[in-house]
Amino acid sequence: MENRLNSEVDIERLMQDIGKRAKAASAKLALAPTTQKNAALTAAANEIRLGKDAIITANNKDMAIAEGRGLKGAMIDRLMLDDARIEAIATSIEDIVELKDPIGDVLETRERPNGLEISKVRVPLGVIGVIFESRPNVTADAGVLCLKSGNAAILRCGSESAHSSRAIHACLVRGLKEAGLPEASIQLIPTQDRSAVGELLRLSEYVDIIVPRGGKGLIERVQNDSRVPVMAHLDGICHVYIDESADLEKAVSVTYNAKLRRTGICGSAETLLVDEKISGEFAPAILSKLADNGCEIRGDKKIMELFPAAKEATEEDWGTEYLDAIISVRVVNGVQEAIDHIAEYGSNHTDSIITEDAAAAEKFLNEVDSAIVIHNASTQYADGGEFGMGAEIGISTGKMHARGPVGLAELTSYKYQVRGNGQVRP
Amino acid sequence: MENRLNSEVDIERLMQDIGKRAKAASAKLALAPTTQKNAALTAAANEIRLGKDAIITANNKDMAIAEGRGLKGAMIDRLMLDDARIEAIATSIEDIVELKDPIGDVLETRERPNGLEISKVRVPLGVIGVIFESRPNVTADAGVLCLKSGNAAILRCGSESAHSSRAIHACLVRGLKEAGLPEASIQLIPTQDRSAVGELLRLSEYVDIIVPRGGKGLIERVQNDSRVPVMAHLDGICHVYIDESADLEKAVSVTYNAKLRRTGICGSAETLLVDEKISGEFAPAILSKLADNGCEIRGDKKIMELFPAAKEATEEDWGTEYLDAIISVRVVNGVQEAIDHIAEYGSNHTDSIITEDAAAAEKFLNEVDSAIVIHNASTQYADGGEFGMGAEIGISTGKMHARGPVGLAELTSYKYQVRGNGQVRP
Repeated sequence: MENRLNSEVDIERLMQDIGKRAKAASAKLALAPTTQKNAALTAAANEIRLGKDAIITANNKDMAIAEGRGLKGAMIDRLMLDDARIEAIATSIEDIVELKDPIGDVLETRERPNGLEISKVRVPLGVIGVIFESRPNVTADAGVLCLKSGNAAILRCGSESAHSSRAIHACLVRGLKEAGLPEASIQLIPTQDRSAVGELLRLSEYVDIIVPRGGKGLIERVQNDSRVPVMAHLDGICHVYIDESADLEKAVSVTYNAKLRRTGICGSAETLLVDEKISGEFAPAILSKLADNGCEIRGDKKIMELFPAAKEATEEDWGTEYLDAIISVRVVNGVQEAIDHIAEYGSNHTDSIITEDAAAAEKFLNEVDSAIVIHNASTQYADGGEFGMGAEIGISTGKMHARGPVGLAELTSYKYQVRGNGQVRP
Repeated sequence: MENRLNSEVDIERLMQDIGKRAKAASAKLALAPTTQKNAALTAAANEIRLGKDAIITANNKDMAIAEGRGLKGAMIDRLMLDDARIEAIATSIEDIVELKDPIGDVLETRERPNGLEISKVRVPLGVIGVIFESRPNVTADAGVLCLKSGNAAILRCGSESAHSSRAIHACLVRGLKEAGLPEASIQLIPTQDRSAVGELLRLSEYVDIIVPRGGKGLIERVQNDSRVPVMAHLDGICHVYIDESADLEKAVSVTYNAKLRRTGICGSAETLLVDEKISGEFAPAILSKLADNGCEIRGDKKIMELFPAAKEATEEDWGTEYLDAIISVRVVNGVQEAIDHIAEYGSNHTDSIITEDAAAAEKFLNEVDSAIVIHNASTQYADGGEFGMGAEIGISTGKMHARGPVGLAELTSYKYQVRGNGQVRP
């Protein structure tokens, strides 16, 4: 018992110390020129390449532990690093070097009648806590996006990738040192003690924002426990709605892509809504293509009549993010009923309408309350890279601060600089 | 005991119901045209004028209770409504009618190489909870700013202004009805039961953001307890720093204005920092003008030598928002020491440097981490109206979402509308 108490006190002290060091580093980073930040990133990419053997050795330890715990194929694959994947980590760091530094951008200027000149200038958020699961490359992605946007990062990786993440992190720190930036610009917190996450969520004195990336359980815990503002990345229960005026060919190819291009990403479609008026023709065409390619169909009563191979969907299906080759399918009576279904069961992530009717499309784009609303294209475009924003740390489903893809600019705040010549307020 | 439990259950049910109704209203408001929102505001201003007698009768009840509780002069003055103040409430609603509606603004468009057209469009946040103290006019200000920006508002006034706020709120609701908008667009929650605030802070299913306006105690409680994202309006420990290259005349007039124009607002200066190199000449000139006008001076040892009428400042003084005719004064060694002092004791609100040295000014504007940084002007300009933003709900001192004055645009979010012609992601 005494041991446990001591360890809790130690973790609290350790996290306070990590917070303080991050805050101090962030003050330096906020003023660091773009060239110095880019030098650190370029050096880090080189260190990743030089450290390849050490990273693979560390990754082997994580893999052995995971296999010992009986982890499944997809999980193991997410964890695995090889030469090509390590090179991809280095390359993606170099891609971020090429992105424009958002810090110092003047977003707006105005001169007031009294002669005051007011500029709204982009500044870093400060210290960003990123909590994520499984994929070890996120250690580099998240740390590097925070750094380029002038923020200090406190990273907490999943325990299953602890060795790999530590090896990657060591390369990032060497890059920081080579460029003369504080080592505490990117810190990785211990995974052995789960109470470290709880402490991180209470560090409101030092941490400006928490970005959780992971499953529903993680996100909910973070949202419930955090004293620090959270930029939520909730689940993606994404819908495709096929309107009565849809083009059949587009409807089939977009739905197929939205569901099956990749099933494990947050922008993959989970529910298909089909307008009753064209369901007789469209539903069998779309569903047979999906089923022929290994997708399980869970439909409402009308779908089961139109496509007898479908299983019956339960109420739970409409609110489930499968992240797998399963789709729930419902017949609705027009665009309004589709919008209502999405309002009730959606997760405000990404939803798409397929139609040739401009009025129905505009109604859907305006009335569906999601971060990304799409007309005649796949929901799998929900991605910062596809939006032309460069790398992203995730897709925000909340409305505060940033919504949709979170790239460099979304990891910033702003300040007002006011220039006068002795004005006093009347 | 059973009674108390029943009442807790009732409050929980009541708040759930308020949240649900606000959410439903917000869906309508998000799509309401500007003309309809403005019609509701114009009607509300008229109802305030027509309801003047009822508002004054209600205010008399609040005043009698407050006097019975022995409230002091300034507190009583903040609570009091008369014909002129009620007319000012109506006029300030009409001012908001004149402001541009931010909803639907296209913030950015881009066309991707694959032909996708992406628009970033301004949308309301949804449901805003505003918790405030004392001044009854905030009921109208907050409700009306939320409405114009397409948000539903749940307002919680201070118990001392409960009758006045209810009377004002009734006028707003009549305005909503006349314009055909949901009555639940602006709701006022009961003040009798303090647990209603706690319930509001847990309504994350329905409420998108909480804006607390009030003293440190209120803000801290909200930040600690809220499950809903909070847009913090912390205290304003604002500094004026007189650099060695300051113009004496500007230094005196700006400091005087920053401290004494109004002492009870968050942008009033609380601490004066004077560069050692000019402290012998400047400090006595500034401090005697402040002292002659009733300001108490609390100085460090060097100030006490230069200005013997000063009391000695304690460590606590440097972190205190007096909101009164008191100023703490310290001698510092140049702009870096001023920046360091502000980093240690400031509240990231508003700070000003007085200097004719452009390099020192730029250093201060870049390195002081506050929402508003000013060169050669009074800190009392920290105000949305003075920034040309129209009315404000307050000054945000956090970095997430909005920073500095929070007006209509800062009460919004955005969504991405993507228009395609059948694109699927490779």
